[in-house]
Amino acid sequence: MHPDWTRRERPLRLERRLAFPDYEATRRFLEQAGALSEQEGVYPDISFGRTYVNITLHADDNATELSDEQRRFVDALDAFQPTDTNEAHP
Amino acid sequence: MHPDWTRRERPLRLERRLAFPDYEATRRFLEQAGALSEQEGVYPDISFGRTYVNITLHADDNATELSDEQRRFVDALDAFQPTDTNEAHP
Repeated sequence: MHPDWTRRERPLRLERRLAFPDYEATRRFLEQAGALSEQEGVYPDISFGRTYVNITLHADDNATELSDEQRRFVDALDAFQPTDTNEAHP
Repeated sequence: MHPDWTRRERPLRLERRLAFPDYEATRRFLEQAGALSEQEGVYPDISFGRTYVNITLHADDNATELSDEQRRFVDALDAFQPTDTNEAHP
């Protein structure tokens, strides 16, 4: 899992903030994430502005771990080209 | 302006929450809003999940009113088909 994910408790969730060079890159990422959500049936809470995206993925109620679908979603999201995330523009 | 917009002070901003029947409708609205942002150069802070979208449009620093672009953005956003928003599914 990408080191930028933060695990928080009560309620159990994963959080990650991504920065982008411009709105076009932000939008491209959001479209990829949207397609992934539909494909995996996993719908994180997402907030965004022109050059940032915050993702919060809540574990299922009373779960003590993320589900397989949620883990798969996180892995797939991490695999999006680095140029779409802040690695390319620290 | 649609009655669902709420004007808040300190800092001056407009807020609106929209509910959708499913993720497909949520995504279609987000794509329309994204295209509008690029067209008008207006980038609200947006948060969303599977069936909701929250929009916060901040006035420019020290502004006492929204700019013309921001007003145009709000009007255009309100004009999206009602079936994309909670009017059709109260």
